[in-house]
Amino acid sequence: MEEDRSDPDGPSHPRAFPAGQAGRRDRQLGELRVDFPVSVVLPAGGTGERTGLSTPKQFCSVLGRPLISVTVQAFERVSWIQSVVVVVAKENMELMTDIVQRFQHRKVRVVAGGSTRHRSICNGVLALGEEEDEEERPKVVIIHDAVRPFVEEEFLYKIAMAAKEHGAAGAIRPLVSTVIATTAEGYLDHSLERGKYRASEMPQGFTYSVIHRAYQRCTESDLEFGTECLHLALQYCGTNAKLIEGPPTLWKVTYKRDLAAAESIIKESLSRSACVITGGSARAVTLADALQEAAAALHLELDLVSDLTGDNGRYLSEECNFIHVSIDGSCLSEVESLLKDLEAANRALLHPLVVIWVCLWRPDEPVTPEPAAAAAIMGVASAAKLRNILLYGIRLHQSEDPERWERSVSKVAEITSALIRERSPALVGQLLQA
Amino acid sequence: MEEDRSDPDGPSHPRAFPAGQAGRRDRQLGELRVDFPVSVVLPAGGTGERTGLSTPKQFCSVLGRPLISVTVQAFERVSWIQSVVVVVAKENMELMTDIVQRFQHRKVRVVAGGSTRHRSICNGVLALGEEEDEEERPKVVIIHDAVRPFVEEEFLYKIAMAAKEHGAAGAIRPLVSTVIATTAEGYLDHSLERGKYRASEMPQGFTYSVIHRAYQRCTESDLEFGTECLHLALQYCGTNAKLIEGPPTLWKVTYKRDLAAAESIIKESLSRSACVITGGSARAVTLADALQEAAAALHLELDLVSDLTGDNGRYLSEECNFIHVSIDGSCLSEVESLLKDLEAANRALLHPLVVIWVCLWRPDEPVTPEPAAAAAIMGVASAAKLRNILLYGIRLHQSEDPERWERSVSKVAEITSALIRERSPALVGQLLQA
Repeated sequence: MEEDRSDPDGPSHPRAFPAGQAGRRDRQLGELRVDFPVSVVLPAGGTGERTGLSTPKQFCSVLGRPLISVTVQAFERVSWIQSVVVVVAKENMELMTDIVQRFQHRKVRVVAGGSTRHRSICNGVLALGEEEDEEERPKVVIIHDAVRPFVEEEFLYKIAMAAKEHGAAGAIRPLVSTVIATTAEGYLDHSLERGKYRASEMPQGFTYSVIHRAYQRCTESDLEFGTECLHLALQYCGTNAKLIEGPPTLWKVTYKRDLAAAESIIKESLSRSACVITGGSARAVTLADALQEAAAALHLELDLVSDLTGDNGRYLSEECNFIHVSIDGSCLSEVESLLKDLEAANRALLHPLVVIWVCLWRPDEPVTPEPAAAAAIMGVASAAKLRNILLYGIRLHQSEDPERWERSVSKVAEITSALIRERSPALVGQLLQA
Repeated sequence: MEEDRSDPDGPSHPRAFPAGQAGRRDRQLGELRVDFPVSVVLPAGGTGERTGLSTPKQFCSVLGRPLISVTVQAFERVSWIQSVVVVVAKENMELMTDIVQRFQHRKVRVVAGGSTRHRSICNGVLALGEEEDEEERPKVVIIHDAVRPFVEEEFLYKIAMAAKEHGAAGAIRPLVSTVIATTAEGYLDHSLERGKYRASEMPQGFTYSVIHRAYQRCTESDLEFGTECLHLALQYCGTNAKLIEGPPTLWKVTYKRDLAAAESIIKESLSRSACVITGGSARAVTLADALQEAAAALHLELDLVSDLTGDNGRYLSEECNFIHVSIDGSCLSEVESLLKDLEAANRALLHPLVVIWVCLWRPDEPVTPEPAAAAAIMGVASAAKLRNILLYGIRLHQSEDPERWERSVSKVAEITSALIRERSPALVGQLLQA
């Protein structure tokens, strides 16, 4: 059985979903220059029988978005990738075109697939060759799976460069299980020596000429029963692919449980930080400072700003969550104006966005009648939900007792962290107590 | 690459976590008679470097319980399994002993492991042989992984029977990826024909005499570098193991994402049904009936009872969630008495248990002052949380307007379903609005 010794997939996948630090990461990746045209073929024709769901897995929803859109986004983020050909079964052409429009994918072309995986990939490769202008044709074609959403730029870079140099390149991973040969009667014949073998994974890269030639020369039987593009390149072009060890994040969504895993990875990547807007009042800033400390203990990093004007406007274009601190129960109007800004920035297009209204009440303050306060936030939240923004409220009472105050602040941090992590649509508009 | 054609892991794993139908299932499984002693060795000495967590993965928490406890439970549920030897690293002996006590495992013996997987398994097998009375020694030993928590009785039965008949038996699965051989320079040499090979998985079964002899005869090098028990049985006892195709639920928790997947499987299995206690009043029953219909649309099955006396007492011994419907804001005392019953039944030992207090208010009723109502449920919930019971409140207002009423009931169902599925500890004691 057991144990490969490779890297963990770690807390998550920073490059795929930057949370609040996009600028910094892009600068790091600026070094990865690819000076030749690269395009991608994403076969997405599978029927998803293994997930136990009626929807093919590439169209299953992960945090409200089809998995294929998450994978497409991973490629669209990469500046040196020209175009992504998504190959789907004929009956899903319209569905895929809708997804491209709805999530505003800019580099995608949808192509009809064939009856097998190889026929579909072949159609995708041929579609790339239709460019009249030869200069526009890709030098390298990357082939990936629609259901491996967490592929990172750095690894794509390695594959593209190796493909250009060697004609073909592919990701490999250590074997997770011992591989055994069975007798015809179903008994153990022998087990393979694990060190000599690897699992072939995706992505793979080919020069356009190698993959095009391989599909021109291969047989009907290859197209019908074959599974491995690297094998075709070897057999029909004499190209020994360069093999590159990939990270565990290349893993493939296969079963229903994998959808849950994918969702948890995305949720975690979206839940590391939030921007706290204080409005600048001293009481709000004091609360925000205390909240920042309590949240840090829960691995939630809070950035404090007084408003989103000037330089702080950048928070509107980052994948971050917002906490609006009010010291006045009537300040829901400030939250409404934040929601408008977020909507204008089109920030909730790809992921549901969390906004939490933290409302501080003084004991001496006349309390807004409960049903009215509850109804007000519920109304605003219901409207925001239609635009993929999840608004929740938390109310805490100012206390002179330091111990009690600290407990309340910790509770706000705990609830905030849970709301941001869980992103539950059923709980929007609730006014929670800390 | 791609595609094996086996069963999906499906919506979840009914046998591992019966929800409300334990009796029925046990009767079905009553047919699986094993009339020879079977014991289990669970090597749990791994250091968990691949999860990217500081805790070894078998000790990582899944819904508040260490994964190893979930796996142990899967074996303890099986009536014909005598004992489970858990082999852990010396430094984790105390931790494991604590886990056994805390979760009241009855069949477990904790044994110190060796420096490698084979040495640990060997220690476990030797521990089973220490019984003075030969009759007490197991006829068959099942070896499993601590981090494959969803193994089912039916499959264990197949392995045990085949092991007894053939001397050795092991689970296999189709290969998920193409297996390739690499050249010394890191290029593709050739790919294996997938149909001829299988992945060797767990559990495996051996007669005690075969596995004992295999470990007596094997070399230091086998103990140090070997990975496959089936291979030792073949090499040192001439036993060709019978190979049996296992379900995808045998999958192994390897990465951090797998912990999320495991948690989602357990959560889903715990979230299929709930018992609604109405107290018998007509208004409560009307609400419960409407709720039942709305919940069914969300795949949450509700059983309605007026109380938990007589035959209904059985709900207290099943893995189900509770919804208490009150038509009177002062009825928190009824909820407190339910909590006492649940505590007496020790129902939240293995999983956090959800209790939802649904409180119906008439418009003409004097509303309990908000802070008082909120503080009351928060107090009760905080105490219950210490006993692993998660209490939440939902308040809805009676309405004469049928459309509004229906909307409120749907909202209650939606919130209920989310609370039961998410089991968020941070939100206990909240009084939510529907």
